[in-house]
Amino acid sequence: MPRAVALPSNADQVSQVLALAYREGVPVAGRGSGTGLSGGALAAPGGIQIAFPRMNHILEVDTENRTATIEPGVINLDLDTHVRKFGMRYAPDPSSQKACSLGGNIAENAGGPHCLAYGTTTNHVLGMEVALEDGTVVQLGGQSREVPGYDLRGVFVGSEGTFGIATKITVRLLPLPETVKTFLGIFPDIESACSGVSAVIGHGIVPAALEMIDALSIRAVQNVTDAGYPEDAGAVLLIELEGLWEEVDEVSREVESALWETGASDVRIAEEDSERERLWLGRKTAFGAFGTIAPNYYLVDGVVPRTRLTQVLRKVSEVSEKYGIIIANVFHAGDGNLHPCMLFDEREPGVKEKAMAGASELMEYCVEMGGSLSGEHGIGLEKKQFMPLVYTEQDMATMKLVRDSFAPANRLNPGKIFPDGEEFEPAVQATPRQADPGMYV
Amino acid sequence: MPRAVALPSNADQVSQVLALAYREGVPVAGRGSGTGLSGGALAAPGGIQIAFPRMNHILEVDTENRTATIEPGVINLDLDTHVRKFGMRYAPDPSSQKACSLGGNIAENAGGPHCLAYGTTTNHVLGMEVALEDGTVVQLGGQSREVPGYDLRGVFVGSEGTFGIATKITVRLLPLPETVKTFLGIFPDIESACSGVSAVIGHGIVPAALEMIDALSIRAVQNVTDAGYPEDAGAVLLIELEGLWEEVDEVSREVESALWETGASDVRIAEEDSERERLWLGRKTAFGAFGTIAPNYYLVDGVVPRTRLTQVLRKVSEVSEKYGIIIANVFHAGDGNLHPCMLFDEREPGVKEKAMAGASELMEYCVEMGGSLSGEHGIGLEKKQFMPLVYTEQDMATMKLVRDSFAPANRLNPGKIFPDGEEFEPAVQATPRQADPGMYV
Ligand SMILES: Cc1cc2nc3c(=O)[nH]c(=O)nc-3n(C[C@H](O)[C@H](O)[C@H](O)COP(=O)(O)OP(=O)(O)OC[C@H]3O[C@@H](n4cnc5c(N)ncnc54)[C@H](O)[C@@H]3O)c2cc1C
Ligand SMILES: Cc1cc2nc3c(=O)[nH]c(=O)nc-3n(C[C@H](O)[C@H](O)[C@H](O)COP(=O)(O)OP(=O)(O)OC[C@H]3O[C@@H](n4cnc5c(N)ncnc54)[C@H](O)[C@@H]3O)c2cc1C
Repeated sequence: MPRAVALPSNADQVSQVLALAYREGVPVAGRGSGTGLSGGALAAPGGIQIAFPRMNHILEVDTENRTATIEPGVINLDLDTHVRKFGMRYAPDPSSQKACSLGGNIAENAGGPHCLAYGTTTNHVLGMEVALEDGTVVQLGGQSREVPGYDLRGVFVGSEGTFGIATKITVRLLPLPETVKTFLGIFPDIESACSGVSAVIGHGIVPAALEMIDALSIRAVQNVTDAGYPEDAGAVLLIELEGLWEEVDEVSREVESALWETGASDVRIAEEDSERERLWLGRKTAFGAFGTIAPNYYLVDGVVPRTRLTQVLRKVSEVSEKYGIIIANVFHAGDGNLHPCMLFDEREPGVKEKAMAGASELMEYCVEMGGSLSGEHGIGLEKKQFMPLVYTEQDMATMKLVRDSFAPANRLNPGKIFPDGEEFEPAVQATPRQADPGMYV
Repeated sequence: MPRAVALPSNADQVSQVLALAYREGVPVAGRGSGTGLSGGALAAPGGIQIAFPRMNHILEVDTENRTATIEPGVINLDLDTHVRKFGMRYAPDPSSQKACSLGGNIAENAGGPHCLAYGTTTNHVLGMEVALEDGTVVQLGGQSREVPGYDLRGVFVGSEGTFGIATKITVRLLPLPETVKTFLGIFPDIESACSGVSAVIGHGIVPAALEMIDALSIRAVQNVTDAGYPEDAGAVLLIELEGLWEEVDEVSREVESALWETGASDVRIAEEDSERERLWLGRKTAFGAFGTIAPNYYLVDGVVPRTRLTQVLRKVSEVSEKYGIIIANVFHAGDGNLHPCMLFDEREPGVKEKAMAGASELMEYCVEMGGSLSGEHGIGLEKKQFMPLVYTEQDMATMKLVRDSFAPANRLNPGKIFPDGEEFEPAVQATPRQADPGMYV
C-alpha cells in the first residue's frame, strides 16, 4: 500500500512530485495499468505511487514519417486501434494489450505474439521524454532510429521503472499488411507440435506469430468459449502469416506441408477476419480460462533456444509429477519463450511452496539449457533471487552502476531486480472463476 | 601516434593490457580496421592502442539457432561470406564492409544499404564479452534477443569505444532470401529522384535497399568503372527488393510504376547476380572514384526525416555555391541518411576552412529540419562540438554518467563524443588518384 498516490496531468507535475519525494527521501514507483507480472509496480514501503490515468492522450500521429507521439498512460490496444484508421499499426502486442499501458510496456520491454517477426518494444520506441528521480527532465533518443551519442533510449527500455518516469513517448508505426492468414495446426501430442515449430522455422519462414497451446489449456479454453480447438488434441499451434497476397499464398503451402510432415492430424486455415478472431480468442482467453481448472495460478516465464523446446517441456512434465501440481503451457513458441502455468488452490496447505519450488527448478533448467530467466515479464521483485543464475557479481555491479548514473539515490523502484534488499512473496494470481471471453489475456 | 600498440591474441591479454594501463594512468583506444570516419580510433596523447588482427576468428556458427560467435577483429564481409555457405547472412553491410571489423561496427552501431529493411548493427548483436577499463571482464546481453536485467548490450553498441573493449561477440544471422532484384531508376534531376524515393516508401514498400547517386557521383564512378549508369542522368536510384519470388514479382511492378510516375526517364532491372553486382559496383566505388575529381574529400554525415530530403538537398546546392566547393551526394535515401561529400584540393589556401564552414552549416540545417547529426559514422572527435545542437547540458550529463558507470576513470577513448576537452582538426581524406574499382567504398 503506497503512502500516497499522485495522478499527474503533465510532465511538469510528474517532475514536481519527483523533486518533492527526492528532497524528502521518499521512494517512488510508477504504475501503468498494474498488469505487470513481476511486482514491478508495487510501491516500496512508505513510498509514493505515480499513476497515469490522466496522461493518456495520443498527442500526434505523423502519417508521412510513420510515427506517433503519446503520453505514457495510453493503452497499447487504443494506440493500435487509433493508428489503424490511417492504415498503420503499432506492432508489439502483449497478450495484455487491452489493459496495459505504453509506459509499462517500455519499462518491461514488453513482447507479444507478433514480436516474433517485428521485435519487442525496444525495436519500436524511437525516443522519450523522461523525468529523473530528482525531477530533472531529459530527452532520450529522438524521432528516428539513428541518433548521435549513446543509446540511452535503448537502456531505458526494459529498466523496469528504476531509471526514470517516461512522460512522453515517440514510437514508430508499421504499414498494415495486405493479407493476413491464420493456421491452426492440430497435433496428437506436444512433441509433434514442437517438431512442427522446428520445421516451420527450419524452412526459413518467419511467421508473424507462432503460438503453442497444450491439451490442458485447450480444455480450459473450451470450458469458457468455443474457439474451435478440438478437445482431443494433444496440442495446437496457432500460426499467422502476413504480407502481400502472393507471398502469403506461397508461404502458406510451405507451412501446411511442414505441419503435415511433422504429424499434424489436421490443419485449418482462417482467412476471414471473423474466423481469425475466433482462433485468437482461444489464445487470448487462456489465462482467464484457467480459473475453470484451479482457483490460483503462478506463471513461470523463461526462454530457451528453440531447439531445446521439446526437452524443456519434458522437464515441465517431470516437475508437474514430482510436485503433484498441474501445469498448463501456452506460449510464444516461435522465439522459445516458455510460459508454464502452475495451477493450484492456495488453500491447500503447502501447495504454494511446492509451486514455488517447481518454478525454481524450471527456471534453473532453462538456464542450464542455454536459456534465460524471463522472456518478457521482467525481474521486478519476483525473480531477483534468480539473477545470480545468469549474471556474475561483476555483471550485476555494472548494471547497478548504470542504474546509479540515472538514479544515484536509487529512489525509483528501490529493492527491485537485484537480489539484495527486501525479500518478496510472489503474488499468486486469483484466476477469475468466470472468465470473460472478451478479455485479452 | 600512440605510445605503444598491443596486439592481443585473446580476452585475457586484452584484460591484462587494460589493467596495466589503468594502474599506470594511461589512456587506451581500441582499433578495428581504422575505417571509422569520426576519429574514434585515434589514440589520446600518450595513449596505448589495442588492435585485433590476431583476434579475427569465427568461433562458432550455430545453424539451428542462427547465431555466430566471433572475435572482434573479424572483417564484416568475411563473416557474411562464411555464413552464406550455410544459407544465411549477416545483414548490416556498411559500404566499408570489405575492410571494417565487427568490433568497430559495434562501437559505431554501423549501418549500411540493407539496414533500411533489417535495422542497424544493434538489431543484430545479441551479446558480447567486454573487458572494462580496469581489466574486469563482463558479459553483456546473451545468446538470444531476450535477456533479463538492463539492456547493457544495447547501450554498449554505439558507445564508440568509450565503455569497454569487446572481446567476443554473438550476432544473429538471417536466412538468405529466395530472390533478389535490383532496379536502376534513372532521373533527369535530383528533385524527381527524391519524389521517386517518397513514392516508393509512400506505397508502403520497404525495399531491402534504396540508394541515391547524384550526377557528379555518376560522373566520378564512370571515370573509373563502367557501372552502366547513364552519364547524362541527373541522378539515379538503386533499389533492391528481396524475398520470395512471388512477393518480389508483385512489389516489382509497384516500384516500377512509382518510378515512372515520378518522372524516371528509364528503369533498368537486374535479376542475374552479375548484372546486380555491376550496378552495386558503382555505388560501392563512388567514394574512391571522387579521386578523379578532386584530391581531397570531407564527408558530411546527417540524417533528416525522409520527407525533408528535397529541401535539404536544395540547401546542399546553396552551400556549394556559397563556399565555391563542389559537393557530391551518394546516400542511403530510404532512411533519410545524407552523405554530402565536399570535394576540394587542400593545397588551395583557405579551402579546407570553407569546407568545414559549409559542413557546419549543413549539419545545423539538418537539425533545424527535425533531423540529427550522424546517421551512422559516430561523433568521435569530429562532431563533438555539434552535440549541443541536439542535446541539452542535462542530456549530455546523463550520458556522461552512464559512461562513468562503465568507465569511471574515463580511461577508454577520453576526449571523444563530448564537446569539452581537446579540440580536433577534422582529418581530410586523401582520395586515391587511381581508384581501385574492386574496393568497396
Ligand atoms: C494476462 C496477462 C498477459 C500478459 N501477456 C504479456 C505478453 O504477452 N507479453 C509481455 O511482455 N507481457 C505480458 N504481460 C505482462 C504485462 O502486461 C506487461 O509487462 C506490461 O508491459 C505491463 O504494463 P502496465 O501498464 O500494466 O505496467 P505496470 O504493471 O503498471 O508496471 C510495470 C512496470 O512499469 C513501470 N512503469 C509504469 N509506467 C511507467 C512510466 N510511465 N515510466 C517508467 N516506468 C513505468 C512500473 O514502475 C513497473 O515497474 C501479461 C500480463 C497479464 C496479466
Ligand atoms: C569508404 C567508407 C565507407 C563507409 N561506409 C559506411 C556505411 O555505409 N555505414 C557505416 O555505418 N559506416 C561506414 N563507414 C564508417 C566505418 O567503416 C564504420 O564506422 C566501421 O564500423 C568502423 O569499423 P573499423 O573496424 O574500421 O573501426 P575503427 O575505425 O578502427 O574504430 C572505430 C571505433 O571503434 C572502436 N573499436 C574498435 N574495435 C573495438 C572493440 N573491439 N571494442 C570496442 N571498441 C572498438 C574504436 O575505438 C573506435 O572508436 C565507411 C567508411 C569508409 C572509409
